[in-house]
Amino acid sequence: MRYISTTDVEEIALGSTVLGTGGGGDPYIGKLLAQATIKKHGDVKLISAEELDNDALVVPVAAFGAPMILIEKLFSGNEFTNAFEMMENYLGRKIDAVMSAEAGGFNGVIPLTVAAEKKVPLVDADGMGRAFPRLEMVTFTLHGIPVSPIAQADEKGNKNIYETIDNIWGETLVGSTTIPMGGSCAIACYPMTGAQVKKAAVLDIISYAQELGKTILNAKSKGLNPLTSLVERANAIPLFKGKISKVTNVVDGRWNKGLCEILGADDYHGSHMEIDFQNEFLMAKLNGNPVAITPDLITLLDAESAKPITAESLQFGTRVVVVGMKANEQWRTPAGIALGGPQKFGYEEKFVPIEDLNKTSYV
Amino acid sequence: MRYISTTDVEEIALGSTVLGTGGGGDPYIGKLLAQATIKKHGDVKLISAEELDNDALVVPVAAFGAPMILIEKLFSGNEFTNAFEMMENYLGRKIDAVMSAEAGGFNGVIPLTVAAEKKVPLVDADGMGRAFPRLEMVTFTLHGIPVSPIAQADEKGNKNIYETIDNIWGETLVGSTTIPMGGSCAIACYPMTGAQVKKAAVLDIISYAQELGKTILNAKSKGLNPLTSLVERANAIPLFKGKISKVTNVVDGRWNKGLCEILGADDYHGSHMEIDFQNEFLMAKLNGNPVAITPDLITLLDAESAKPITAESLQFGTRVVVVGMKANEQWRTPAGIALGGPQKFGYEEKFVPIEDLNKTSYV
Repeated sequence: MRYISTTDVEEIALGSTVLGTGGGGDPYIGKLLAQATIKKHGDVKLISAEELDNDALVVPVAAFGAPMILIEKLFSGNEFTNAFEMMENYLGRKIDAVMSAEAGGFNGVIPLTVAAEKKVPLVDADGMGRAFPRLEMVTFTLHGIPVSPIAQADEKGNKNIYETIDNIWGETLVGSTTIPMGGSCAIACYPMTGAQVKKAAVLDIISYAQELGKTILNAKSKGLNPLTSLVERANAIPLFKGKISKVTNVVDGRWNKGLCEILGADDYHGSHMEIDFQNEFLMAKLNGNPVAITPDLITLLDAESAKPITAESLQFGTRVVVVGMKANEQWRTPAGIALGGPQKFGYEEKFVPIEDLNKTSYV
Repeated sequence: MRYISTTDVEEIALGSTVLGTGGGGDPYIGKLLAQATIKKHGDVKLISAEELDNDALVVPVAAFGAPMILIEKLFSGNEFTNAFEMMENYLGRKIDAVMSAEAGGFNGVIPLTVAAEKKVPLVDADGMGRAFPRLEMVTFTLHGIPVSPIAQADEKGNKNIYETIDNIWGETLVGSTTIPMGGSCAIACYPMTGAQVKKAAVLDIISYAQELGKTILNAKSKGLNPLTSLVERANAIPLFKGKISKVTNVVDGRWNKGLCEILGADDYHGSHMEIDFQNEFLMAKLNGNPVAITPDLITLLDAESAKPITAESLQFGTRVVVVGMKANEQWRTPAGIALGGPQKFGYEEKFVPIEDLNKTSYV
């Protein structure tokens, strides 16, 4: 058990963005909201899953929708506690702790606002160890935990409860209402016991994200290169270096979807990379050959600062380094690949682990 | 207080279709579902609004979506009681009586299935005295009664509760999820007190619908013409007679929308009528001039049997008589016209009462 302060928030937001693999929302907006709430209500207690009673009620809270929307349509902040309270009212009992649903610049820290305001601890865990664009794509689904009841709230004051017959219907129905709500909303879902968290969640991910954030932020003062420091700390595989030459990015329903093209620089001069995304980066191809495939992580880092770049922030001309990371082992099982792998997104290419894809050089 | 039997159902379904003004769903499917439930669970107690305790909890139940969907995607029957039970669970108290939301071949009788199964009375009232295509278009809205909480259930087992900030958001959000649910679902909404029913509902509409149904069904055995009998009993204004020459009808989101063109016969030979619809008939033009405008009622009757024809059942070549009826007086107030009048549907023509429109002959 330890307490999360406003300083910790900055590190967690940054490191979560590295794990967010292009999605999970903007770290700047997430950081500001979390820091403001902590300033007002005090530091947040972070507990490990092991510290949970087995019958504790734990509920993940998250922003849901297209991250691009966040840039212009800000959250009021109330919708997350509204969703939390509606879940409590519906279940007829107090929630003992909140949790992140996914790592990401926004979704990695927004549960801190609820924890601070509602005076409940945050569990050091999430449901992905990365970010994914669909609600059923969590390790909880792999353990048979229902997404429902789902509490949904928007910034206008609408708040709904969904009881869906399976987790895919959760995505379908909540996704449907998210569009007229303006493309984003707050949700509380997958209510589960402490015992279920211990078994089904990706553990210690908040602390791990904070370590990655610290590595980037502190490198220069230690005389280190932030990029090489991060690559080493995250056990990442460098995939490419270059300049973004083209970005297509459209809000399609509740997602932003697009393609990022990068022209190689330095060692990669003359090569090109294409990265497909749907909120998250899903497939990176180097000169036409896949070098990282979902559920493995693909992260774009600013070539100077090593700060991660989300898909909705991609801009022509930015110099980037692309790195890949192994997904949590739960995603690399046959069930995990079926839930978060390339076929789920309509790709023909089968999943191959990033470490195997990069034994051969395509440059 | 009286009891509704399977024989009554047939008359109510038919008469409700006259009032459904093209919408409100198919009377045959509604009749079969209601009769089957009454056969199994016994006759349903019909009570007048005056018989309600002022603090009784009354909840309208209805099918929601495009009536055309009903023809191919049948209801299981359980979704209506599922919505009813979810409303009870959410409010934490028993519902004392159910009510129709709108008149219509399906929605005029489907509350009987819930009343029979849940052993609660049906109130002789509804929220329109006709049918309308949007959830906020009820007299309840004119009296400031919130649509929320709304319970929604589909035939697959999904069931949701909406707490919307106003009645238009109820239409928007429930409408959004109805589409992936397959275009139709069951809802329970506008929970209200007995006192509110007495003030806000259209009273005695079930009995009135039954009178209209009886008039059509019994005319021939009395040696009467069903058409003239119905016109007289309903105080309807004959608008046109002819043969349907063209129908365009598409499922657009959760509605069926289209246009029905009729070539005149007999007294109307050489004239033509066009009727616009969105689930319900909204505007009838005779030789280009409006002769009936929403919220007044437009009903197409089979020229021989006087049986009403719903918008989704319009067919080329059918010989029809078009009649109009005055809307309930609540709809003819400035607030009623704003909620259910032509501007709400995007027409330029202002509302003119049907009795004024038909002082002049356009033939």
